[in-house]
Amino acid sequence: MKSFNPPVRTLMGPGPSDVHPRILEALSRPTIGHLDPAFIQLMDEVKELLQYAFQTKNALTMPVSAPGSAGMETCFVNLVEPGDKVVVCQNGVFGGRMKENVERCGGIAIMVEDAWGEAIDIAKLEAALKANPDASIVAMVHAETSTGAQSDVAALVKLAHAYDCLTIVDAVTSLGGTPIKVDEWEIDAIYSGSQKCLSCTPGLSPLSFNERALDKVRNRKTKVQSWFLDLNLVMGYWGTGAKRAYHHTAPINALYSLHESLLMLKEEGLENAWARHHKNHLALKAGLEAMGLSCSVKEGDRLPQLNAVTIPEGIEDAVVRGRLLTEYNLEIGAGLGALAGKVWRIGLMGHSSRAENILLCVGALESVLGDMGADIKLGVALPAMQKLLAESEK
Amino acid sequence: MKSFNPPVRTLMGPGPSDVHPRILEALSRPTIGHLDPAFIQLMDEVKELLQYAFQTKNALTMPVSAPGSAGMETCFVNLVEPGDKVVVCQNGVFGGRMKENVERCGGIAIMVEDAWGEAIDIAKLEAALKANPDASIVAMVHAETSTGAQSDVAALVKLAHAYDCLTIVDAVTSLGGTPIKVDEWEIDAIYSGSQKCLSCTPGLSPLSFNERALDKVRNRKTKVQSWFLDLNLVMGYWGTGAKRAYHHTAPINALYSLHESLLMLKEEGLENAWARHHKNHLALKAGLEAMGLSCSVKEGDRLPQLNAVTIPEGIEDAVVRGRLLTEYNLEIGAGLGALAGKVWRIGLMGHSSRAENILLCVGALESVLGDMGADIKLGVALPAMQKLLAESEK
Repeated sequence: MKSFNPPVRTLMGPGPSDVHPRILEALSRPTIGHLDPAFIQLMDEVKELLQYAFQTKNALTMPVSAPGSAGMETCFVNLVEPGDKVVVCQNGVFGGRMKENVERCGGIAIMVEDAWGEAIDIAKLEAALKANPDASIVAMVHAETSTGAQSDVAALVKLAHAYDCLTIVDAVTSLGGTPIKVDEWEIDAIYSGSQKCLSCTPGLSPLSFNERALDKVRNRKTKVQSWFLDLNLVMGYWGTGAKRAYHHTAPINALYSLHESLLMLKEEGLENAWARHHKNHLALKAGLEAMGLSCSVKEGDRLPQLNAVTIPEGIEDAVVRGRLLTEYNLEIGAGLGALAGKVWRIGLMGHSSRAENILLCVGALESVLGDMGADIKLGVALPAMQKLLAESEK
Repeated sequence: MKSFNPPVRTLMGPGPSDVHPRILEALSRPTIGHLDPAFIQLMDEVKELLQYAFQTKNALTMPVSAPGSAGMETCFVNLVEPGDKVVVCQNGVFGGRMKENVERCGGIAIMVEDAWGEAIDIAKLEAALKANPDASIVAMVHAETSTGAQSDVAALVKLAHAYDCLTIVDAVTSLGGTPIKVDEWEIDAIYSGSQKCLSCTPGLSPLSFNERALDKVRNRKTKVQSWFLDLNLVMGYWGTGAKRAYHHTAPINALYSLHESLLMLKEEGLENAWARHHKNHLALKAGLEAMGLSCSVKEGDRLPQLNAVTIPEGIEDAVVRGRLLTEYNLEIGAGLGALAGKVWRIGLMGHSSRAENILLCVGALESVLGDMGADIKLGVALPAMQKLLAESEK
């Protein structure tokens, strides 16, 4: 057995996205202790940079020491007590995972279901809230990684508050890619992942709770069922002030890389990052549509950073993805759950959202699909994208 | 705000330990997808290397995607159901954390308490098992990171089995540093951490379950309360065969580094690593004792990789550790819980367990304590260690 030397891929699936060399280099800096004064200073900077990324002043803004799924679980185990009624809006895989979380916390999940690939219907949520006046939490996914659809979180949160509910928002795929404004939209609890539009390596889950959510955590009748994710304890380590109590050993080097990725986001500017994701989406879409492929999510609901593309009739999903990987070292994503075999998911997230990646992806797809005899137009994608790609580089 | 450039420390606390440059370099290799065929191969190799480190053939041997505390929680949430009686042997901080875990799973914790800094008393465990014939699990810490004492896990597990109990063993500080033989000792469930004697960066928790433990997981009456840590689901991703189902996004780069650290352990040989930890412990101890300091754990119960040293009368703990850090970039650990202010914890774990580190630590302690007017003997530590250090390099 030898050292593992990974192949060099271009990552245009639903995550992880391409990691910038600056971030990889940050990962390999010398490890220091999790209570070292220099590390405490890093933690403070990470919190401040996360507040910028989330657009919030929430004091409890920090990364959970585990992947996005653990960030989701942190929200539910801290906010849901046995018997609590939680309205869960589901329009893809991750709404289903939220239901699992509610039930494993002893809560009652009231499901509001929309078709996979569509945005959450605000009227359906209102009907559910009217029918369940004792509901205390509404949970929703901002950007459904499994389908490429985004929902109007600002409006949904406003409605939930009108019915006296706290809100939990999944921003795993949205943070850094499309506008998310925690304070302006009054989101109570939100979590994300490091490996999507932040372009950091996977393994951390940024999270933010406002005072209303924290009040609920502080005044629970029962203990949080997870010791590792209990925010009452985690805050002793990530809290304010110079003195920090040991809770668990933080993933030191992973936090170096998160710091670097958030710094890069701040250097670019959040608005510029959103604009870049939007422009590059338009270029990719123009190329794919010129070729004859179509986006499966309807206009207006589409996530710029994660493009669901309908697989042409008669074309076998896995063969195409396998050829892209072996012939071009290019990873794109399969459909999940109900969309398996029906769509591809093409990510333009973080450092992956670049003109050169769009050229590679559209060119490689055209080449492979053409070779497989798919019913697509050859030679028209590049001209269709040219102007948009040039603009995306401005 | 700028990129974070950590100070270069020598890590001789209770963890993280010094990370070898090979492992830091592995961390920074290009990120690939968590379902990439090349990554699946890496996962298989990590499992095989962990089986070697744990000395087991258990099929369920893999790293949890979070720090050691989450490894502990994985064992408890999967094995404990509401109402289960769990005997917890406590002789330090981590036995207390086990109690928290049992209770948060709805179990009943029967505590067997020993003094902090002493090994677990097998007679007390037997008395507890006799008094609680309905207990179904015994939990114990092999190497108490908080005190530096180790217990006779082989004998304790044998006793637990005689009373029809499953066993959960904490090997966070022991794995790679002192003998731990999962199959020979018939340990049912065991977890560790990446950042101690494996000298990898913190953030992962190696774990192994035998078939008896897995049977209990498969035949639970209730769902595992954690979705993220539910082994029934995690095994779909880490399981055998080429086809893996998505569960969560694995911390790709962290797993590169774990692979590298396990490879280094295999290259050295487990027995050689154990011998190196033992020899270096003897050299450190000789130097400290010559100076007039004493180990707080009694001979025979001492962990070679984590040395608890009694703080001399009138010497303020934090001042000494602060000076070691600022004047020598050397981190040693404080006492935890009942031992706070009373002992230092000097780690000789993994890559930190080297002759040059012992010289630095003993020399720096002698210099700082001497300067503070502590009642120690000057100039005798080095001669006392000389022969042992030379031997430790063979």
